[in-house]
Amino acid sequence: MKPKSSLMDPLTKLSELFKEFPGIGPRQARRFAYFLLTRNNGFVSELTQSIENLRKNIKICTSCFRYFPLGVKTEQNLCSICVSPNRDTQLLMIVSHDNDVDHMERTGLFNGLYFVLGGSVPILEKEPENKIRLKELLSVINNKCSTSDVEHLKEVILALDLNPEGEHTEIFLKKQISPLAETHTFTLSTLGRGLSTGTEIEYSDTETLKNALKNRE
Amino acid sequence: MKPKSSLMDPLTKLSELFKEFPGIGPRQARRFAYFLLTRNNGFVSELTQSIENLRKNIKICTSCFRYFPLGVKTEQNLCSICVSPNRDTQLLMIVSHDNDVDHMERTGLFNGLYFVLGGSVPILEKEPENKIRLKELLSVINNKCSTSDVEHLKEVILALDLNPEGEHTEIFLKKQISPLAETHTFTLSTLGRGLSTGTEIEYSDTETLKNALKNRE
Amino acid sequence: MKPKSSLMDPLTKLSELFKEFPGIGPRQARRFAYFLLTRNNGFVSELTQSIENLRKNIKICTSCFRYFPLGVKTEQNLCSICVSPNRDTQLLMIVSHDNDVDHMERTGLFNGLYFVLGGSVPILEKEPENKIRLKELLSVINNKCSTSDVEHLKEVILALDLNPEGEHTEIFLKKQISPLAETHTFTLSTLGRGLSTGTEIEYSDTETLKNALKNRE
Amino acid sequence: MKPKSSLMDPLTKLSELFKEFPGIGPRQARRFAYFLLTRNNGFVSELTQSIENLRKNIKICTSCFRYFPLGVKTEQNLCSICVSPNRDTQLLMIVSHDNDVDHMERTGLFNGLYFVLGGSVPILEKEPENKIRLKELLSVINNKCSTSDVEHLKEVILALDLNPEGEHTEIFLKKQISPLAETHTFTLSTLGRGLSTGTEIEYSDTETLKNALKNRE
Repeated sequence: MKPKSSLMDPLTKLSELFKEFPGIGPRQARRFAYFLLTRNNGFVSELTQSIENLRKNIKICTSCFRYFPLGVKTEQNLCSICVSPNRDTQLLMIVSHDNDVDHMERTGLFNGLYFVLGGSVPILEKEPENKIRLKELLSVINNKCSTSDVEHLKEVILALDLNPEGEHTEIFLKKQISPLAETHTFTLSTLGRGLSTGTEIEYSDTETLKNALKNRE
Repeated sequence: MKPKSSLMDPLTKLSELFKEFPGIGPRQARRFAYFLLTRNNGFVSELTQSIENLRKNIKICTSCFRYFPLGVKTEQNLCSICVSPNRDTQLLMIVSHDNDVDHMERTGLFNGLYFVLGGSVPILEKEPENKIRLKELLSVINNKCSTSDVEHLKEVILALDLNPEGEHTEIFLKKQISPLAETHTFTLSTLGRGLSTGTEIEYSDTETLKNALKNRE
Repeated sequence: MKPKSSLMDPLTKLSELFKEFPGIGPRQARRFAYFLLTRNNGFVSELTQSIENLRKNIKICTSCFRYFPLGVKTEQNLCSICVSPNRDTQLLMIVSHDNDVDHMERTGLFNGLYFVLGGSVPILEKEPENKIRLKELLSVINNKCSTSDVEHLKEVILALDLNPEGEHTEIFLKKQISPLAETHTFTLSTLGRGLSTGTEIEYSDTETLKNALKNRE
Repeated sequence: MKPKSSLMDPLTKLSELFKEFPGIGPRQARRFAYFLLTRNNGFVSELTQSIENLRKNIKICTSCFRYFPLGVKTEQNLCSICVSPNRDTQLLMIVSHDNDVDHMERTGLFNGLYFVLGGSVPILEKEPENKIRLKELLSVINNKCSTSDVEHLKEVILALDLNPEGEHTEIFLKKQISPLAETHTFTLSTLGRGLSTGTEIEYSDTETLKNALKNRE
C-alpha cells in the first residue's frame, strides 16, 4: 500500500513521482532521484524552470492537436505545420500520438497535414470518445470540407500502429468517417500492409503474406 | 586446425559432422552425439535407414525444382503440386528455398505453381548462375509461354526475403525476366511492402513507411 | 551539434535535459516531455516542488556518505543506519553506490555499517581520488580504529560489482587498506565468489568454476 | 496427431526423427532433412557410417560412467581419465552429464576423478533411482573406500547445476552419501556459491548475496 504522500521523505516522494513516468520502474525512479542529488544547482534549477515553462509556452494546436511551442507570431494557436504555405492541405493523416508526427516529419515522406488522436481505442471500450479526440476530429474534417474546391479535402489517411488496439481504433474510425467520405467525396485510406524490412517469407505470418500478395506490384 | 578425420574417435568425428548442420555449433553437435548414445538401437537404426532412404526416394521436381517423395504413380518426376489439376497454372511464384514453399502452402493463400531457386545471389557475386537455378528458371518460363492461350503464363511473382541478399536477388531476376515478360506479355510482380503485424509507426524505418504510404488502400 | 540552449523551444529544451538522466535516450526523453504536458497542474507542481525540496532536505551522512532525509532529531548529519544502537559497529561494508545500500538493506542480510564510495575506479584512471571518496574512507576507518576495544573495527568487507571496473576498484582499495588492516589488526575481506543462482556447470566460465572449487564447503 | 510412421514420406519421416533431437523443433528438423538432400553422397555415407560406428565403438566407462571411445589397449572398459596415473584418485567429482566432464576438463581446474549421474532428480520424483545412476554411484564410492590408506577416497564433491532440479538432486545425494562419508571418513562437499562473473550487487538475489557474505575471504 502506497504510504501517505506527506509522510514520505523527499527521496522516496520524488521516486514515487518518477515512477509515474512512462516506462520507469521503482529502481530507475530512485536512480533518477539520486542522479538529481549528484548534479549541481545549475542543472536542477534549469530542470524545474524548464518544466514550469513547458506548460506556459507549449500549447495545443487547434487544428492538428499536437503540442507546439508558442512563438512571437503564433496566430490562433496554430502550429508551424498547420500554417505553412508549403503543405498540401488536401491531405490529412490521422495518427495516435505526437511522437508519430515527429517521426513521420523526420522521414520527410509526407507533405500533408496531421491530426493527433491523443491515444487509441481499447478493444472493449464503451466510451471511445474518452480515449481519442473524436469530436475534434469530425469537426476538423467538416471544416476542411466546407472550403472552396481548390483546397477541398481530397484524402484522409489512417496511419495507426498495426497492433490489436491500433487495428481496433482503425475499424472504429472507418465507421465514423466513411459516411463523411461519401458525403464530401474524399478518399479514406489506410497505410499499406506487406513485407517490412528484414522480413523473411518463411517467418511471415499469414496476415502479412495475405496483404503482401494482395498488394503486389 | 581440424584433426584428420580418420584419426578422430567416433564421438568427436560424429560431432564434427553434426557441426555442418545449419545452425549447429560445437556444443550442440556434441550433445547430438551423446543423445544418439542414450537412445536405443531401434531409434538409431530408424535414423540411419531413414537418411539412406532419403536420397533414394526423394527426387527433385523437374518443373518447380523442389524436393518431393517419389510415389507409385509419379510421372516424369513431377511433384504433387505441379501435377495437380486444381492449381492455377497461369501463376508462377519464385521463392528461394523449399521451406518457403512449405510455409506458403501452409497458409493456403496461393493456388498457383512455384519455382525454387535453391538459394539467393550475394551482393558481389560474379557468377550468379552458380547460386541459383537461373538456367532452369528461364527454361521453365519459356515452356510455360509456349502453351496455348488458355494455359499461357499470366504472372510471375517474385517472393524473396526482404533482406539485402534477397533484394539483390530480386533486382538480378527482374533484369533477367523483364525482357521475357515483355516478349510473352506476362506480368512480373513482387510482393507488396508495408506495415507488417506488430509494426508501430514510431518505430518503422523510412523504407517501410515509404512503401506503406505508396501502397495505401 | 547541440543547438544553443536559449534558442531551443521549451519542448526540445526539456527533452535535452531529460536526455542527461541515466539510461534515457532521445525518444524516451521526448516522451517524458509529452507526458508532463498531459498531466494536470497538480502533478507538475508536486514534481517541481519535490525536486527543489530534495536538495534542501536530503543531506549526505558524514559517516557513511549515503544520501538521507534530514529529520527533526538528526544529529551531526548522521543517517538512521549510522546512529542506530542496533547495528554492529565493528563491521564496515564498502559499496559503490547508494542503490547498493538500499538493496543490501532490503535483503536484511547485513547488520553492520556502510561506506558509499560514490563510484568506482576505471582501469587506466590516473586520479582515483577523483572517482571515489578515498580520503573520507581512510578517515572513517581511522576513526573507527581509535575507539575502545569493545567498539573497535573488526572487519572491513569490500562489496563491489564483479565487473572489470569493480574488480579494479577492489584491487586499488586492497592496496590502500591493507596497511591499515595490519596496523590496526582488523580483517579485510571481499564477498565470496562461486556459482550464483541459475548457473549451469556446463556454461560457467573458468574463473567462476575456479572460485567455486576453491570455496567449496 | 502424429501420422503412422510407415505411411509418411521419407522427408517427413526423417524430420519427425530429427524433432527428437535435443533443442530441435519442427522447422529446424525439416531444414536438417533438406540439408542432407543438398549434400553429396560422400557426406551422407560418412554420417550414417559414423552414427553406426558410434554404438560399436563408444562404450560407457565402468568407473565414471561417461561415454568414451574404445581404443586398442582399453582394459576393463575404463576411460582414459580413469586409467590415467596422473589423476588424483582420492578426489571424486559427481556431475549430471558428460558435457559437464568435457567442460570441466577444458578448464583444467580439476585433477581428480569423475562420476556421471546421467541426469538429475526432478522435484516430485518418486523413483530417483530411475533418473540417476544411484546404485552404481554408491557401489563406486564403496569400492574407492576399500582400498589402502594411500589411495583411500578423501573427498566427494557435488558439482551440479544451481537450478531447482540440480539443487533437489544435491539434497537427495547428500542424504544418500552422508552416512558413507561418516563411516569411511571422507569429506562430502559442494561447489561454493557467491558472486559470479558479471554480477552486480544491486541486481544479485538474496540467496546469492547470502552465500557471498557467508563465503567471504
